[in-house]
Amino acid sequence: MKILIINGPNLNRLGKREKNIYGAQTLDEVNSFILEKFKDSNVNIDFFQSNEEGVIVTKIGISEEFYDGIVINPGAYSHYSIAILDAIRSIDIPVVEVHISNILAREDYRKKTITGEGCVGIISGFGYYSYVLGVEALINKF
Amino acid sequence: MKILIINGPNLNRLGKREKNIYGAQTLDEVNSFILEKFKDSNVNIDFFQSNEEGVIVTKIGISEEFYDGIVINPGAYSHYSIAILDAIRSIDIPVVEVHISNILAREDYRKKTITGEGCVGIISGFGYYSYVLGVEALINKF
Amino acid sequence: MKILIINGPNLNRLGKREKNIYGAQTLDEVNSFILEKFKDSNVNIDFFQSNEEGVIVTKIGISEEFYDGIVINPGAYSHYSIAILDAIRSIDIPVVEVHISNILAREDYRKKTITGEGCVGIISGFGYYSYVLGVEALINKF
Amino acid sequence: MKILIINGPNLNRLGKREKNIYGAQTLDEVNSFILEKFKDSNVNIDFFQSNEEGVIVTKIGISEEFYDGIVINPGAYSHYSIAILDAIRSIDIPVVEVHISNILAREDYRKKTITGEGCVGIISGFGYYSYVLGVEALINKF
Amino acid sequence: MKILIINGPNLNRLGKREKNIYGAQTLDEVNSFILEKFKDSNVNIDFFQSNEEGVIVTKIGISEEFYDGIVINPGAYSHYSIAILDAIRSIDIPVVEVHISNILAREDYRKKTITGEGCVGIISGFGYYSYVLGVEALINKF
Amino acid sequence: MKILIINGPNLNRLGKREKNIYGAQTLDEVNSFILEKFKDSNVNIDFFQSNEEGVIVTKIGISEEFYDGIVINPGAYSHYSIAILDAIRSIDIPVVEVHISNILAREDYRKKTITGEGCVGIISGFGYYSYVLGVEALINKF
Amino acid sequence: MKILIINGPNLNRLGKREKNIYGAQTLDEVNSFILEKFKDSNVNIDFFQSNEEGVIVTKIGISEEFYDGIVINPGAYSHYSIAILDAIRSIDIPVVEVHISNILAREDYRKKTITGEGCVGIISGFGYYSYVLGVEALINKF
Amino acid sequence: MKILIINGPNLNRLGKREKNIYGAQTLDEVNSFILEKFKDSNVNIDFFQSNEEGVIVTKIGISEEFYDGIVINPGAYSHYSIAILDAIRSIDIPVVEVHISNILAREDYRKKTITGEGCVGIISGFGYYSYVLGVEALINKF
Amino acid sequence: MKILIINGPNLNRLGKREKNIYGAQTLDEVNSFILEKFKDSNVNIDFFQSNEEGVIVTKIGISEEFYDGIVINPGAYSHYSIAILDAIRSIDIPVVEVHISNILAREDYRKKTITGEGCVGIISGFGYYSYVLGVEALINKF
Amino acid sequence: MKILIINGPNLNRLGKREKNIYGAQTLDEVNSFILEKFKDSNVNIDFFQSNEEGVIVTKIGISEEFYDGIVINPGAYSHYSIAILDAIRSIDIPVVEVHISNILAREDYRKKTITGEGCVGIISGFGYYSYVLGVEALINKF
Amino acid sequence: MKILIINGPNLNRLGKREKNIYGAQTLDEVNSFILEKFKDSNVNIDFFQSNEEGVIVTKIGISEEFYDGIVINPGAYSHYSIAILDAIRSIDIPVVEVHISNILAREDYRKKTITGEGCVGIISGFGYYSYVLGVEALINKF
Amino acid sequence: MKILIINGPNLNRLGKREKNIYGAQTLDEVNSFILEKFKDSNVNIDFFQSNEEGVIVTKIGISEEFYDGIVINPGAYSHYSIAILDAIRSIDIPVVEVHISNILAREDYRKKTITGEGCVGIISGFGYYSYVLGVEALINKF
Repeated sequence: MKILIINGPNLNRLGKREKNIYGAQTLDEVNSFILEKFKDSNVNIDFFQSNEEGVIVTKIGISEEFYDGIVINPGAYSHYSIAILDAIRSIDIPVVEVHISNILAREDYRKKTITGEGCVGIISGFGYYSYVLGVEALINKF
Repeated sequence: MKILIINGPNLNRLGKREKNIYGAQTLDEVNSFILEKFKDSNVNIDFFQSNEEGVIVTKIGISEEFYDGIVINPGAYSHYSIAILDAIRSIDIPVVEVHISNILAREDYRKKTITGEGCVGIISGFGYYSYVLGVEALINKF
Repeated sequence: MKILIINGPNLNRLGKREKNIYGAQTLDEVNSFILEKFKDSNVNIDFFQSNEEGVIVTKIGISEEFYDGIVINPGAYSHYSIAILDAIRSIDIPVVEVHISNILAREDYRKKTITGEGCVGIISGFGYYSYVLGVEALINKF
Repeated sequence: MKILIINGPNLNRLGKREKNIYGAQTLDEVNSFILEKFKDSNVNIDFFQSNEEGVIVTKIGISEEFYDGIVINPGAYSHYSIAILDAIRSIDIPVVEVHISNILAREDYRKKTITGEGCVGIISGFGYYSYVLGVEALINKF
Repeated sequence: MKILIINGPNLNRLGKREKNIYGAQTLDEVNSFILEKFKDSNVNIDFFQSNEEGVIVTKIGISEEFYDGIVINPGAYSHYSIAILDAIRSIDIPVVEVHISNILAREDYRKKTITGEGCVGIISGFGYYSYVLGVEALINKF
Repeated sequence: MKILIINGPNLNRLGKREKNIYGAQTLDEVNSFILEKFKDSNVNIDFFQSNEEGVIVTKIGISEEFYDGIVINPGAYSHYSIAILDAIRSIDIPVVEVHISNILAREDYRKKTITGEGCVGIISGFGYYSYVLGVEALINKF
Repeated sequence: MKILIINGPNLNRLGKREKNIYGAQTLDEVNSFILEKFKDSNVNIDFFQSNEEGVIVTKIGISEEFYDGIVINPGAYSHYSIAILDAIRSIDIPVVEVHISNILAREDYRKKTITGEGCVGIISGFGYYSYVLGVEALINKF
Repeated sequence: MKILIINGPNLNRLGKREKNIYGAQTLDEVNSFILEKFKDSNVNIDFFQSNEEGVIVTKIGISEEFYDGIVINPGAYSHYSIAILDAIRSIDIPVVEVHISNILAREDYRKKTITGEGCVGIISGFGYYSYVLGVEALINKF
Repeated sequence: MKILIINGPNLNRLGKREKNIYGAQTLDEVNSFILEKFKDSNVNIDFFQSNEEGVIVTKIGISEEFYDGIVINPGAYSHYSIAILDAIRSIDIPVVEVHISNILAREDYRKKTITGEGCVGIISGFGYYSYVLGVEALINKF
Repeated sequence: MKILIINGPNLNRLGKREKNIYGAQTLDEVNSFILEKFKDSNVNIDFFQSNEEGVIVTKIGISEEFYDGIVINPGAYSHYSIAILDAIRSIDIPVVEVHISNILAREDYRKKTITGEGCVGIISGFGYYSYVLGVEALINKF
Repeated sequence: MKILIINGPNLNRLGKREKNIYGAQTLDEVNSFILEKFKDSNVNIDFFQSNEEGVIVTKIGISEEFYDGIVINPGAYSHYSIAILDAIRSIDIPVVEVHISNILAREDYRKKTITGEGCVGIISGFGYYSYVLGVEALINKF
Repeated sequence: MKILIINGPNLNRLGKREKNIYGAQTLDEVNSFILEKFKDSNVNIDFFQSNEEGVIVTKIGISEEFYDGIVINPGAYSHYSIAILDAIRSIDIPVVEVHISNILAREDYRKKTITGEGCVGIISGFGYYSYVLGVEALINKF
């Protein structure tokens, strides 16, 4: 089973960015943490990060040929990118949306996720562990 | 570690209620499924279901004396019960909100969860497996 | 044919409560009036009243085993109880919503009925006779 | 007792129009069905249909001289015709609004009825039987 | 100078309709009252009433050939008829909107007048005298 | 008969202020124009202008002792001064609101007049002649 | 192939009405222009214009017996006529909505078209050529 | 004189719940504090607490037989319980709404109180002393 | 202890203004009533009234030098004066907002109080006794 | 005459993406279909596709040097990209917006097109033929 | 060159008022700071402060006779004073709006500035230096 | 001191784009103008322009290593790019937002700037001089 983890804008700066909200580890450290969790499973995990909406759209579009599922943290794009929503709907593999912080407990404009409408489900608020739960959801449910 | 799983209104009728949305298993079967998943862990799981908002408020209020965390599916109350939100905020143990269906992909009035604002995080859309992920989130993260 | 008539919050105080709006008869008198109307038909009518949202949810949930249809006046819960809406949707027998006053001609927050979305139809504004029309609708149409 | 049944826009095309919503009988057949229901009562029923808002306004305005009550299905005009609302308020005989489908369970712009604010009450969702209930409401209540 | 006074829906029923709001005189009596006021001026006044939006649109459209100005009471159509607004904008003679009651002091949906956006001005709240002021405005200002 | 004409903020600068909207005459010239119009009537007209909301409130409050009616152009305060609305409601003489420009045909925030809710009626859009019509309305109607 | 072109309110006054927006040709000239464009095709085109909402509803309702498709410019009715929307949905031939001006670039209340929801598609902003494109769309696509 | 003090959801957990907002004393201690304040008056005070909306509705409904007035802190139900509002309106004794914190200075959804619309008045923001002021209001004013 | 009672716009006209809402006593009589209530306490009470928003802002600004607390009835300014809100927030002594009528039970635009956001608390609906409760709140709580 | 056809996000996946909405042909096939339609005209058509908002902005910006007009299907960006709107407004050649599906008949957030405000016009709902109509509009009208 | 700096409500209390937001210096100190900055330029700067909306309106109105430009900090009036907006629009000299704090980063009701619509531009968030930038903008740009 | 000036979408087309709004100089000329203004200061200024949201996000993210402050004109992205807002919040150097035109005096959707919420302050409406003021703000204030 092959899974792609996509991270959206500003997540390349984990560990440097608003640490009280997003934690102190870098994206590489977070990715290693995830790999470690699944090292004994037969799941292959690839990682992809981009700050660019269109590049994420493109990546999602071609991913169904190579992966069995996607875990995506669209970052700020969650809240307005109908383009990414359309990309998620355009493919036949399941997509799980995750967020590090609990978006329900933040600013009003962060409470709704338009991209989440096209996903199988959403996991929000568990720090880096949100990614682990997202992968597990893909493994166990589908 | 002791965890309480609370189910809100109409979840007593799982297996009979809108099966295309909520699945074909009864609540007892779902509870057994969850227990099975954690039978080798050292987690004790109790179950509680009520259709009544105030009874759920009361249960949450006293739970911090007996449990280390709560997984709650507030059902329809998610969308308007400030009373349950207040109950969640009134205790010092972590609460995870779960939903069987992806509430983001349903009617407008189901897209927002007011109770989720008081929780650590939310897991929505993974069928009965949402409960398992909720328990895991409590075990691994706290 | 067996029909259940459910009355929601404050309807236990008919005859005492805002008589200019809800009339001068008690709930018992209204129930007798309804029975009288159908005494020559082969319809059995049971009555149930509760001020508690969750108790109404429970009652609706188990009613499909015992009744062929429900006439419900959810009172104030019409305007916000998604839990009762879900209960109505969770059963396979028809539900008719009735109101004593014309909810369209009152305060703004009383104009919309969320529970009515799950019902076969709504009858509003005919005083106690709304219940009679509700029963007739069940008898003749289904 | 004389009653006028008014049908608004597109109801002349019953039986041809969106049958899954409005049923397969023509307006003439529906009218016969209603007459049949009341053939043993001492109620005289007249029928009037128009697609034109202003013609309906005129008809309502003169109707109080000839009728004891009106059952009206304003069709789409329910949702925006303040002119018909004003006409209903301008007369001294009771008016009952009926709808074939349950307008609460359809598009958002169909959920509110402005004309219903001026009526005694509303009956919505019982197919052609909504008209029968409307006539009964007039007979029994007034 | 020739002026046309247009009255919209339900104004044919003045004197019978909600007298506490619209007064006790018939439209004919009101028209005589207006003529009397201007009998010594060199103004010719014609009257036109219709309940039909489209007929009013047509009348406005051809009026610029025959009149120097229009006083219109669009009744309920004020609140939603973009068609009448467009008709008013389509002609080159001034149009004054009048209302018998003060629309600002009534229901919310009566507070805004879309047709008034295309008029020279609006006069609202002076009973039948609103028409007199409307004619005077046309005489003195243009 | 004694009438008070009140002008609100920025109207002291008529003739200098946005002439394309408010015209080229000074407030004194406008006042003279009004007096001229009523020189043969037995109406006494006083003028009052203030840029200050509270001063206008005070003036309205004491005016019922000295005047039989008020014509007020509250200027920008029309759109938000509940204090002036309350002052108008606090007295027993009729108040007519006037505007030089047609407030319905301007910016959205100028379309509603909260002060107008407390007045007998409103006259808007006839340039300086709006004041004349306002005085006539007081003379003829009351 | 037979096509009906329906024009709504105020379009009878093309060439006289707000020429900067709607152009300088009369409706007859526009119709001739359209016929000229399709003189070599085997398409028969009929024209119908009415200012009256209900008359347009009636015309649409009977058109499916005589035509293979409709091109409609509902004018101002686009923005609020649910009655015309229902008429469009009530027939089995395709309907294309056209507008002379680009409704997206005008007043807010002109930006949405409720009638367009029932059409195959919409063409807006190409002057009289919008009609030609509408006919072509019917010819080529269906 | 007999007064009933009703406390709504989560107020049973005073002293344990969000102490920075609601203070450090238990509900029993608060009740003693209130009794102490009125020990020399001839007022009898009873206390009632429930987390359940329907139970509060029932209590209010029967209270007019036993009490001369009610002081109620509906807690979170203030913000959405039309059922409790209806209960308050259904009785003939005065009801005063109190809140420990100033609901105007908190989250948006806490700023409006629907139950307060049915009360004589509201007292909000004075900590436990709000109850004392509420009782005084009943004693002195009625 | 020194307390300042500030009354806002139109409260100088108590006893003359809408007596059914605000009562029949003059402001002087109300002030005497308040003084009488506290004649045996060691509280000094000063009174200040102004119709002018800016004058009230100024008074609040300098009051912290002379008083230990303020009771303010901002009248209509409650609903929109961010300037008075800012003044209240700019001082270090407690401010209590009071209203004679229950603002929650009146027009929509009177239901919210922006100035109340900066106060310790609000007391609304107890007639002239609201002032007494406001003073007591200051005495007992701070 | 040279025309540029721009396709926005996810349109590179035509033929694979939600075929029930967008059809079964690939973008290349659609482009060939368009070219075929205009092979006998003297129009040169270039094609450009990008998933990236900024790249589309850049392309539009430089296009006026090379083309006489643009047909653009901005895809999801239609609904929120003020940047693309600004790009369209920044050039002096006409731009026509096209959509494959009828955006008026889909989700609420797809009903408005902000980019369309800067275009000459919009063509929506005719499948791949929308592009052909767009090109024709450019050829014939400008 | 002569410039007038106007400060609105509560700015007379700089240095005492919410120092974490508005800083610790008094208005006199701030004014000296500004004068110091421009002591070598040939700009004359006058200062004016008032808490009263109408007084500010008056000052703006007469300022064009004496000054070449205005820098205004309307304080709270920015958010609702259409009267000050109108005053700004009524004069022919440029007006620059400044704010000490960044109004975009504060409460929702502070995010919009209605007065700013009539100004040349706005400078917000730079503490006392906002005034200096405002003066420079006037000097260098006009 | 090193400062980065970032220009967003369509600003590469300054001098060609809507000159009445944005002026006649090219971006290079504007940049030279800025450099000229600060040639005698010890400030180094770099320039960066991109039409792509994600590229701007990336640039902001890495800028804190190389610069002491940023002046950004996010163009259209100001109004919806939460991604750029997050980028601004993710760095520890001050960011000043500038606009050439006064965004408060333009279309509604241009009046709010979401990116401005994360900046130190905003400067809008001073043409190219807005950039100069932005740099000065950085130099003098931090």
